[in-house]
Amino acid sequence: MSFLEKLIRPQVRELRAYHVDEPPVNIKLHANESPYNLDAELVGEIAEEVEAIAFNRYPDAGCEDLRDILAGQLGVRKEQVLLGNGSDELIQMIIMAFGGHGSPVVIPHPTFSMYKNIAFAMGEEVRSIPLDESFELDGKAMIDEVKKGPSITFISYPNNPTGNCFSEETITQILEASQGIVVIDEAYFDYSKKSFLEKLKDYPNMIVLRTLSKIGMASLRLGILIASEALTDVVNRVRLPYNMGSLQQAAALVALRHREELDRGIMAIIEERARVCNIMKNIKNIETFTSHSNFLLFRVSNGGDVFKKIVEKGVLIRNLDSNGPLKNWLRVTIGRPEENDIFLNIIKSI
Amino acid sequence: MSFLEKLIRPQVRELRAYHVDEPPVNIKLHANESPYNLDAELVGEIAEEVEAIAFNRYPDAGCEDLRDILAGQLGVRKEQVLLGNGSDELIQMIIMAFGGHGSPVVIPHPTFSMYKNIAFAMGEEVRSIPLDESFELDGKAMIDEVKKGPSITFISYPNNPTGNCFSEETITQILEASQGIVVIDEAYFDYSKKSFLEKLKDYPNMIVLRTLSKIGMASLRLGILIASEALTDVVNRVRLPYNMGSLQQAAALVALRHREELDRGIMAIIEERARVCNIMKNIKNIETFTSHSNFLLFRVSNGGDVFKKIVEKGVLIRNLDSNGPLKNWLRVTIGRPEENDIFLNIIKSI
Repeated sequence: MSFLEKLIRPQVRELRAYHVDEPPVNIKLHANESPYNLDAELVGEIAEEVEAIAFNRYPDAGCEDLRDILAGQLGVRKEQVLLGNGSDELIQMIIMAFGGHGSPVVIPHPTFSMYKNIAFAMGEEVRSIPLDESFELDGKAMIDEVKKGPSITFISYPNNPTGNCFSEETITQILEASQGIVVIDEAYFDYSKKSFLEKLKDYPNMIVLRTLSKIGMASLRLGILIASEALTDVVNRVRLPYNMGSLQQAAALVALRHREELDRGIMAIIEERARVCNIMKNIKNIETFTSHSNFLLFRVSNGGDVFKKIVEKGVLIRNLDSNGPLKNWLRVTIGRPEENDIFLNIIKSI
Repeated sequence: MSFLEKLIRPQVRELRAYHVDEPPVNIKLHANESPYNLDAELVGEIAEEVEAIAFNRYPDAGCEDLRDILAGQLGVRKEQVLLGNGSDELIQMIIMAFGGHGSPVVIPHPTFSMYKNIAFAMGEEVRSIPLDESFELDGKAMIDEVKKGPSITFISYPNNPTGNCFSEETITQILEASQGIVVIDEAYFDYSKKSFLEKLKDYPNMIVLRTLSKIGMASLRLGILIASEALTDVVNRVRLPYNMGSLQQAAALVALRHREELDRGIMAIIEERARVCNIMKNIKNIETFTSHSNFLLFRVSNGGDVFKKIVEKGVLIRNLDSNGPLKNWLRVTIGRPEENDIFLNIIKSI
């Protein structure tokens, strides 16, 4: 082992840098972004706010205005809200605050890959519990695990990359049984309208995550943590003091003041999801999984092959095909109607 | 211990959230910011770039353009450069990548408080080694410590809050003796012009940190890590994929293309530092420490009292007075000439 290799945290030796592969394509349906950029008027307003920034000064450390408006829109107290550079940074903070006990980070499999990557980077052990064949939680196995000690459990609701919301009853049982923290990651909430937010008062060990990344502001990196005041306060202890830059705060504030604009994009995507899903369900040799998110998971006979052909025709989707539960599954983000039509024509022709 | 308290990582129990105390004042000389905002023309250019952003798309994960221009300006290869939301995030990444061995994080005391806070949040042990009476490193004690195992050592060069550059010879001895990583945090490099960057090729275990926060862009949160390609690659494994937002990247790019504008502010501050320091050295009952940074450390007979009086007169400085090596020491950031004059008149009158 080289000098440097010996110095690396053991779990980090297994990690590889997250590789963002972006072949040159015209249509990007791979990253679960919204296909709708902010309105020109909103962008103009953001530019104006940017011009008023004191660039030489540190940002508002407490993100006061942003937390105010978010708390109002979410129907919680400001003291329950914490912001991060994307949910990624919040996941990191949660593991920082509540890890280190020797208990594992518990996740279903397959799910959002960053739970595992971040847990490894923090030196935590990870227990991955396979979903069943209909991509539903294995409630018994999860509950057995979270009963053992102060674990941190991540449940993506709806789940990425499968797109479904797991059984509310099973999640509730996990929340009740857990000796540790349970994180309900509602990154795709705007497309499912199903949430555990209302149950925060019942579960002092629950954290809900939201984000602006899927509804037209992926560029900003704005993740939102909501929990009890006491729990939020603990996570805040490990937050880097000026974690959110001034431009990011200013831009998010403008967008959130025009929530109705964002809602318009969300509505359009939900409608398109139904249309695209219906068409795909009628295509032979493709199995399309019902989705509560802004993407669709579908199985073909040869995933790697089909993926390559789709990219060659200028549409980038996400290739999930590998040995394991996602063998031959691909994921496509819902785009603008004309983008979806191009995608549909390609898969029909393959 | 409450349910929640038991779940907190033991070291995090000792942490309190970083408290940003900002009484309403007219003149802010407490945060080591540059007093000069970016030029109106530059700000206009930034606003234009912001208008061109695809807000709905994820940022450039690799920060390619920004790392290109920075590598050029620093005279290193792009593969040696990594960016973070302020140096804070880079410090966190370094401890993530190289911690977890049971060896301590080694720091002098007093120094920048975030080394210790971040190490605690990551569950690391911290060994603080007191500076001597002239605020110089205790070379022998540091070397004894870093010889023992894969420690991570943070050396602020110049040191915050003392303002001096430690002996180059002592730091070199630490670099040679260390069995682990040595981080030279050159956050205030632009005011010292002294750097270890040239020695990167000699020390495969060395990391240099820089930042844009002290030279007019604290709002952006842009920290810069420079190390060998191999070492940079390891830290990159724990970097969150989209850690730098699109607005932040766009704004930094504009500012760095006009480096000469930033240099003008830096020159003015260095000149003012000499003027203010000379005047302060002639004020009775005040001991002013020679600085290689954009702030001055000075000792008065009753630190807490003097601090309160200065704030009451509308100038915020940093109160470092507490039991320990900084008893009765205060820190003032170099501001614009007229701000410094107001500050000088206040302390003369006290």
